[in-house]
Amino acid sequence: MQRRINVASGKEPADLVVKGGKVLNVFTGEITQGDVAVVDGYIAGIGQYEGKREVNALGRFISPTFIDGHVHIESSMVSPVEFAKVQVKNGVTAVIADPHEIANVCGTEGIQYMIEHTEGLPFDVYFMLPSCVPATQYEEAGAVLSSEDLSPFYEQPRVLGLAEVMNYQAVFESETSMLEKLLDAQQKNKLIDGHAAGLNEKAIDMYMSAGIRTDHECTTMEEAKDRLEKGMYLMIREGTVAKDLRQIIGVVNDRNSRRCLFVTDDRHLDDVILEGSINNSVRLAIAEGIPVMTAYQMATLNAAECFRLKEQGAIAPGYKADFLLLDILEEVSIHSVYKNGNCIMSEGSVQGFPEEYPYVLAEKLTNTVSLGTITPDDLEIRIKGEKANIIGIIPNSLLTKRLVEKTNRTEEGVFIPDSSMDHLKIALIERHNATGKIGLGIVKGLGLQSGALATTVAHDSHNLIVAGTNDEDILMAIQELEKSQGGLVIVSGGEVRAKLALPIAGLMSDESADFVYEQLRKMNQVLVDLGVSQDYNPFLTLSFLALPVIPALKITNEGLFDVTEFKHISISV
Amino acid sequence: MQRRINVASGKEPADLVVKGGKVLNVFTGEITQGDVAVVDGYIAGIGQYEGKREVNALGRFISPTFIDGHVHIESSMVSPVEFAKVQVKNGVTAVIADPHEIANVCGTEGIQYMIEHTEGLPFDVYFMLPSCVPATQYEEAGAVLSSEDLSPFYEQPRVLGLAEVMNYQAVFESETSMLEKLLDAQQKNKLIDGHAAGLNEKAIDMYMSAGIRTDHECTTMEEAKDRLEKGMYLMIREGTVAKDLRQIIGVVNDRNSRRCLFVTDDRHLDDVILEGSINNSVRLAIAEGIPVMTAYQMATLNAAECFRLKEQGAIAPGYKADFLLLDILEEVSIHSVYKNGNCIMSEGSVQGFPEEYPYVLAEKLTNTVSLGTITPDDLEIRIKGEKANIIGIIPNSLLTKRLVEKTNRTEEGVFIPDSSMDHLKIALIERHNATGKIGLGIVKGLGLQSGALATTVAHDSHNLIVAGTNDEDILMAIQELEKSQGGLVIVSGGEVRAKLALPIAGLMSDESADFVYEQLRKMNQVLVDLGVSQDYNPFLTLSFLALPVIPALKITNEGLFDVTEFKHISISV
Repeated sequence: MQRRINVASGKEPADLVVKGGKVLNVFTGEITQGDVAVVDGYIAGIGQYEGKREVNALGRFISPTFIDGHVHIESSMVSPVEFAKVQVKNGVTAVIADPHEIANVCGTEGIQYMIEHTEGLPFDVYFMLPSCVPATQYEEAGAVLSSEDLSPFYEQPRVLGLAEVMNYQAVFESETSMLEKLLDAQQKNKLIDGHAAGLNEKAIDMYMSAGIRTDHECTTMEEAKDRLEKGMYLMIREGTVAKDLRQIIGVVNDRNSRRCLFVTDDRHLDDVILEGSINNSVRLAIAEGIPVMTAYQMATLNAAECFRLKEQGAIAPGYKADFLLLDILEEVSIHSVYKNGNCIMSEGSVQGFPEEYPYVLAEKLTNTVSLGTITPDDLEIRIKGEKANIIGIIPNSLLTKRLVEKTNRTEEGVFIPDSSMDHLKIALIERHNATGKIGLGIVKGLGLQSGALATTVAHDSHNLIVAGTNDEDILMAIQELEKSQGGLVIVSGGEVRAKLALPIAGLMSDESADFVYEQLRKMNQVLVDLGVSQDYNPFLTLSFLALPVIPALKITNEGLFDVTEFKHISISV
Repeated sequence: MQRRINVASGKEPADLVVKGGKVLNVFTGEITQGDVAVVDGYIAGIGQYEGKREVNALGRFISPTFIDGHVHIESSMVSPVEFAKVQVKNGVTAVIADPHEIANVCGTEGIQYMIEHTEGLPFDVYFMLPSCVPATQYEEAGAVLSSEDLSPFYEQPRVLGLAEVMNYQAVFESETSMLEKLLDAQQKNKLIDGHAAGLNEKAIDMYMSAGIRTDHECTTMEEAKDRLEKGMYLMIREGTVAKDLRQIIGVVNDRNSRRCLFVTDDRHLDDVILEGSINNSVRLAIAEGIPVMTAYQMATLNAAECFRLKEQGAIAPGYKADFLLLDILEEVSIHSVYKNGNCIMSEGSVQGFPEEYPYVLAEKLTNTVSLGTITPDDLEIRIKGEKANIIGIIPNSLLTKRLVEKTNRTEEGVFIPDSSMDHLKIALIERHNATGKIGLGIVKGLGLQSGALATTVAHDSHNLIVAGTNDEDILMAIQELEKSQGGLVIVSGGEVRAKLALPIAGLMSDESADFVYEQLRKMNQVLVDLGVSQDYNPFLTLSFLALPVIPALKITNEGLFDVTEFKHISISV
């Protein structure tokens, strides 16, 4: 601290001075000219300063780096380090991560892995602890996490609270295990994030009463207004499947913007690389008419305030020297990125990350796909009557429809997938404990003309989910994923057409982001060839069909699940 | 929590529902109609609710109660409980107190007393720990508090951080004892308040680098703008002596208001009773053109955010049921006050406080005035040359001028007070350890025509300060205060004309606020009779003449102190 005091007061030269830039002051909403002095990774002052090293920022804007208020790193399908490197290009140097996915597969060891593998990076990963593992009693996850399991993690300085409370029912009924988690977080003065998809006013009162203070599930202006009025921070999400920004950004105004921030939640690697992350949200918000400074405040200071990160989110003395040099504010055109005073990205090239990562992955993390023996008989769907309950995909939404339609079937009533009606067979197979449990259903909206898609990324329990036009390809896809201990695969005509192995918990690759991106590109090409819709991401869509906390119709390893009525239903109507 | 959840979700009736009021929503800046449901002292919901008990708020506004961001309770001269009762009438139910005054007299036992005696009240007293006891090395206080002395208090849940860092020099020079306090607060993730009177831009950079995040000493728009730009919370002060609001409120705008809040710092009991406290600040701010909602936000949510009080400062589910019913927003006309869901003030009458306070005061707190033997010789001032350095009072300011004027004196050069020139003798006598140390000086601006005023309230070391027109009355005033172990006294013509005993640390009365107010009124009448100016409070003014951290000329028990040059100077020029 002494050095920082000395540099601030002009007694010693700074390590680095960024000269002549136009500084975005997120406290006052103004842009001021000034040198930014850096010492020991912190900003020492803004004004006139001399430094041992100087960077010319003439003509450029200096903004705080961006903060993603809620993200599942696992959804990028790359390891935390690779994730960080990609985010840095987008000007993001801090995220509040919820390791919900890996925790559902590997339990506390999954959380521990995420914490350890984000240590010492030029990138801040804060954590909220997964509150709902498993997400509901209707799912079979790889772990069950109690309050006692989570509690020791609060000792970690980067753990800020309890993550998205999504089990509305457990709160409503004051289930002991849920109350324990809520109370423990409150008693330790930690934060609690919400997940209030579709909840009405009274339910929001209830969530707030339980100490839950954010929501990232608003999809309408009305919901967004509700959350803000009740005192929740509004997390405006722009993910890969769930794109809410354009629908709800209109709620933001001068008076309430301080309570609004951006999050990505689940965002696929290709989107993060091609469109960006929080930088994309800022750009979209400005295009939708949000004042430039407000958009930058939402991406920086507001997120920091929400999570009480008192040394981040602003260009100010005593704050971490985390900043961007920008050319055009409206376009968020990033020239370079500084973290703790070091340039970690310049003209698209990332530096300052460890070359090799020292950890060896525990078997618990890499040996996570145990299936029983699956035979064609296990995949048979028998339907009574003419019509069947069908999962109807809503493009770019986590919501689905419950469709009731006539289907193709044998005389004995055995369902036959029919690509002309876009009726595919879907199966969810328990993969954690080789129980052999399989849930079967029919899905409409993927558009696959032949073959099968399978993935071990299937929210939230991450069992193996597969959809296809015939049982042979479906079976082959299942076997392929068991071989590689997880991943994404496309099989057609008895051949593996494309594959991405995800050996870390069946969720993340151990390869570079570039490699994964290339595989995904290839995979996309194959999907095009197989007739799958290009309007949305079929694998990510598939992976949310297993999430029985978001309406209307989903699939679990027990079969079809009606989220509106919160019970399993038969395929037959 | 279960009951709160049940009431919020409508399963159980609320304890209390306030029906039909117009709710100030400080999150959105809007006013909405709705029932406010209360259970177990918390707000359960806003909307349509049924309660066991219902209060009709039709036509009234419902606002969160006010929060005072920085106050020295001791300056009210009543005990913490009496202070709380008076504040409640003003709609204040939470204060962030700095027990700096009592700590300077009684050390850690003083802090402990303040914490204990504010336990269990329907009024929240949070604490920042006095960072500068003594305020400077140039003062002789009753205690010296090190980082080790303060550190254990952080365990108390109502202790939020380190209070006003006023020893600029100690920070600038990275004095070990100061750095230890700053680092300890930071390591414990506590807040640090500033006291940046007159500091320039670089000095603010330095303060921010040291983790100091607020300032309540701005007296100009420029200073206020500076602090906001650098990332400090701007505490707009309206005390008894220091009235800054009208000077600096113009800096507040739509973009920066979230970083602004109100404080009173030092406010005399009569002002608190007659004009109010934070309610007065809100009223003044509105009169100065601040939008009504912004003024209320500053008095509620903004203060809560600044101090991370996540269950206060708003009418929202999950928040404490601390609210006001108001008739006219602009006038802050308070009909009733609710704390933890109980009505504690209605039409001017306070209820819900303990009748008798169970504690017996320790001798350390009530035996605090030990003077040596003071003789007339000890009061003699000899001046070389014609002119003398004189403390020039600036009405309603903590600042003073250094005047150089001709004075009346004997042929031997002994100073003779002269009321025609308004030249009074002033003396500061060490009162903690009977060292017999006396600092002497001349003061101009009190306007006393005859007699002497003395007080043991003398910031920050609270030695005995006395000013008068003749040595006999000065001596008698000193003896009177030794007798009562502290207080305020006016002596004239060898007679005690008025007196208020302050036996708690020589700072606070053990009587009711009504009693103290009545004594102060009598005292004022006597001051009028003795010709003292009515434009400002002479005792409070006197009490700040001993504060050698605010420019320009002050008095310590070593004599005159030039704060600008930070050294003692002679009375002779």
